[in-house]
Amino acid sequence: MASSLLSRQLVLSLQQNLRFTAPGCRYVSKAAAKTQMEFEYDGPSMKTEVPGPRSKELTKQLGEMQNVGAINFFCNYEESRGNYLVDVDGNRMLDVYTQISSIPIGYNHPSLIKVMSNPNNMSAFVNRPALGIMPPENFPEKLAESLLSVAPSGMSRVQTMACGSCSNENAYKAMFIWYRNKERGHNIPSDEDMSSCMINQNPGCPDLSILSFMGGFHGRTMGCLATTHSKAIHKLDVPSFDWPIAPFPKLKYPLEEFTRENAQEEARCLEEVEDLIVQWRQKGRPVAGIVIEPIQAEGGDNHATPDFFKKLRNIARKHGCAFHLDEVQTGGGATGKFWAHEHWGMDDPADIVSFSKKMLTGGFYHKDELQADKAYRIFNTWMGDPSKNLFLAEVLNVIRRENLLEEVTRSGKTLLQGLYQLQDQYPNLLSSARGQGTFCAIDIRDDATRNSIILKARDKGVLLGGCGDRSIRFRPALVFKEYHVHMFLNVFSDVLAEHN
Amino acid sequence: MASSLLSRQLVLSLQQNLRFTAPGCRYVSKAAAKTQMEFEYDGPSMKTEVPGPRSKELTKQLGEMQNVGAINFFCNYEESRGNYLVDVDGNRMLDVYTQISSIPIGYNHPSLIKVMSNPNNMSAFVNRPALGIMPPENFPEKLAESLLSVAPSGMSRVQTMACGSCSNENAYKAMFIWYRNKERGHNIPSDEDMSSCMINQNPGCPDLSILSFMGGFHGRTMGCLATTHSKAIHKLDVPSFDWPIAPFPKLKYPLEEFTRENAQEEARCLEEVEDLIVQWRQKGRPVAGIVIEPIQAEGGDNHATPDFFKKLRNIARKHGCAFHLDEVQTGGGATGKFWAHEHWGMDDPADIVSFSKKMLTGGFYHKDELQADKAYRIFNTWMGDPSKNLFLAEVLNVIRRENLLEEVTRSGKTLLQGLYQLQDQYPNLLSSARGQGTFCAIDIRDDATRNSIILKARDKGVLLGGCGDRSIRFRPALVFKEYHVHMFLNVFSDVLAEHN
Repeated sequence: MASSLLSRQLVLSLQQNLRFTAPGCRYVSKAAAKTQMEFEYDGPSMKTEVPGPRSKELTKQLGEMQNVGAINFFCNYEESRGNYLVDVDGNRMLDVYTQISSIPIGYNHPSLIKVMSNPNNMSAFVNRPALGIMPPENFPEKLAESLLSVAPSGMSRVQTMACGSCSNENAYKAMFIWYRNKERGHNIPSDEDMSSCMINQNPGCPDLSILSFMGGFHGRTMGCLATTHSKAIHKLDVPSFDWPIAPFPKLKYPLEEFTRENAQEEARCLEEVEDLIVQWRQKGRPVAGIVIEPIQAEGGDNHATPDFFKKLRNIARKHGCAFHLDEVQTGGGATGKFWAHEHWGMDDPADIVSFSKKMLTGGFYHKDELQADKAYRIFNTWMGDPSKNLFLAEVLNVIRRENLLEEVTRSGKTLLQGLYQLQDQYPNLLSSARGQGTFCAIDIRDDATRNSIILKARDKGVLLGGCGDRSIRFRPALVFKEYHVHMFLNVFSDVLAEHN
Repeated sequence: MASSLLSRQLVLSLQQNLRFTAPGCRYVSKAAAKTQMEFEYDGPSMKTEVPGPRSKELTKQLGEMQNVGAINFFCNYEESRGNYLVDVDGNRMLDVYTQISSIPIGYNHPSLIKVMSNPNNMSAFVNRPALGIMPPENFPEKLAESLLSVAPSGMSRVQTMACGSCSNENAYKAMFIWYRNKERGHNIPSDEDMSSCMINQNPGCPDLSILSFMGGFHGRTMGCLATTHSKAIHKLDVPSFDWPIAPFPKLKYPLEEFTRENAQEEARCLEEVEDLIVQWRQKGRPVAGIVIEPIQAEGGDNHATPDFFKKLRNIARKHGCAFHLDEVQTGGGATGKFWAHEHWGMDDPADIVSFSKKMLTGGFYHKDELQADKAYRIFNTWMGDPSKNLFLAEVLNVIRRENLLEEVTRSGKTLLQGLYQLQDQYPNLLSSARGQGTFCAIDIRDDATRNSIILKARDKGVLLGGCGDRSIRFRPALVFKEYHVHMFLNVFSDVLAEHN
């Protein structure tokens, strides 16, 4: 790999001098000294079709080693900056998808480079500990200044995990353990519990269930997958559990214009939830927990109202089920609040909140009573990765220092306003513009047109992602400013004109 | 955190000068210029009881945030070196457990520090990609020089994952997909397949099973957990699948002294495997795959002979089941070969081999026909972590450069010989010394004595881990030399004398 801008930057950073110049970059001066420096490209710049020749060559190479059916193109991460992803053919794209919504503050943020260049941090990268038995000295401090500094209301405990699926799997296990101890009235398993669980049988491995929602996505390991219902290809051919699946409200947008119909639809779904809880209890598979996303992301950016979530939380309480909010995609600031559920204004929003993606580490917060009663019940070798906590602590510093939640709210308003305008302009093509912060989406006439629009936008230097049957989801980083929104809207508008 | 040895080392390393001196370290000169430098402490050095006052204080702090029931003590990873783990109270211990067998070449190996200090590598740490859609330019190259350079016989394809459980979950999914396509005779699912899988029902979510072994450990997410049968506390209260569980041979050690009895026991288990495959097929839950560890680690370091594995592999073939070797703990060189299954001398040892721990990244190798037929079937956001591949590539360089597999074989022989001698000396206390390379174990009279011995050894500066009901497992890093073995045996001998 040739010496890159990044290499040079690191060296300079180590010399305690963060100022540097590089061709193709520009400085954005800030009135206040909030950030040391911002640097980014001027705009997209396309050199070849995408994937270009180099990407095609690498895809062929990788194809000899693994399935490459989902590969879009190969990236030059060294040269990527802020909101711009650069590919290996020198194409520079405005990234409104950010690695499936997992890059919090853009590429190569100078503050993250500094984390890397701090010699005190090196050991966290080189010596990955078994966190559950021998954590590093700064682990409680780093948890406090990272994850716990943004803990959801009512939660002061957190367990890190390696990825989103592991986070949800372990959250489900925590709910099952809690539920069974509640059933027992104490936490001492019987001899029969202990012997039967070793051979996967009742009562040690009880027939408990997790209630999930049609259209939901909670991961792809086998527990998670039993609660995922977004696309058939994710689930096909994998054995599953007989667990209840409730309808998620199908609302009309903008929500504020269809309050009556939407309230009826939500009431119908909530009634179904209660019916399912009763049914599954009757058939001997009680619902230990309910899992739901604040906005169904993978399943098509489906929203529900705060009223729906408040009532659902009450239903969980009434029936003795744990309530688990999966904020893997919604968490980390993109909705304009750090957690999407903060928009509901609840003191006691959930029993468990899981996260990953923009949080850089997986894991879940939980209320005190959801903590497993004994050691080694929620456990694995690594239990997360402290090097990710270092980055997260710095990401949170940047979010605070640069007021990124306010920026997201501002950019998000401009984005949604722009989508509304385009929707008025192209009523046969676009519908149901919706979103919170920059966590927005819009429906396209049909699947084929949606896919064509995404590819055409990419040719013009804007990276988008799809979700659901025919939606486009917008998932920029938190550093996506109003001028990026305008840049995106201009390209999007051109692409739509070609499809009308 | 105060400036540490490590910090100083990084700075020096960046100045292209790896030589440094530090109090308490010594140089081990090598005849050949194979390694630039080796540095390590002279031996254990204990300052306080373990956990010491600082560890206790930190455990209390962490206890406010999460379950600390499994915490042994807190570590000073900056000051840890090679085979020596230093805790926050300044105690320096010879580490024969290495973070549950997950540190390949010791703490703060200079070659890994160099990976960190190479500016060309920074971007892999700062910008974690969605590997399945937008990999970095050097991804095929790094896969080739790391994972594929040590691919098991007959396998040229590999999929990375974040951890051991995710690796096994996805390996199981690959086996289910392969099996169903085989049943179909093609890979085009029916409309009924597609619609039924969305609601967790047959035939889309088929009643297929994975055959596992009593005493096996394959992880803790719900698919893995259905094949894990080592300790009840791992499985208690978590719903599971009705999958077949075969007995793992209970052999007598040393294996070569009990060949006849052991062969009988293995034959009994193999017969049971075939019976279970037939039974489960008859009850409509066909066995899609068989999963087994080359040495049952968590379950008590239970060995079987090459003959057993060869016959089991044939049974899998005969009945059309995929054969999955879980090398999460055995892989990476500790048995004296890179993969434990290499000791069997088979050209076609398995259809899938999964790994994690010492490999620093999770994942699985598979034969061509086990690759999922379509994109997004084996998929998640991160699909591993390229920064771990960078470290792994360097670990493999070190293993080759320093002939570590030969070293492990030599140290392992000395270790096992020492264990045999102690077993002869303390026949009422010790039995069944066994192992390959340094991947050794010994049984202790009973659980309580085992635990007491582990704690006493720790007080004297040697870190050990348990497994099974009453075994101690030895899991040093690959840089555990003969003089470390002698150091360990001396301490172990002293501890045993106190327990006789």
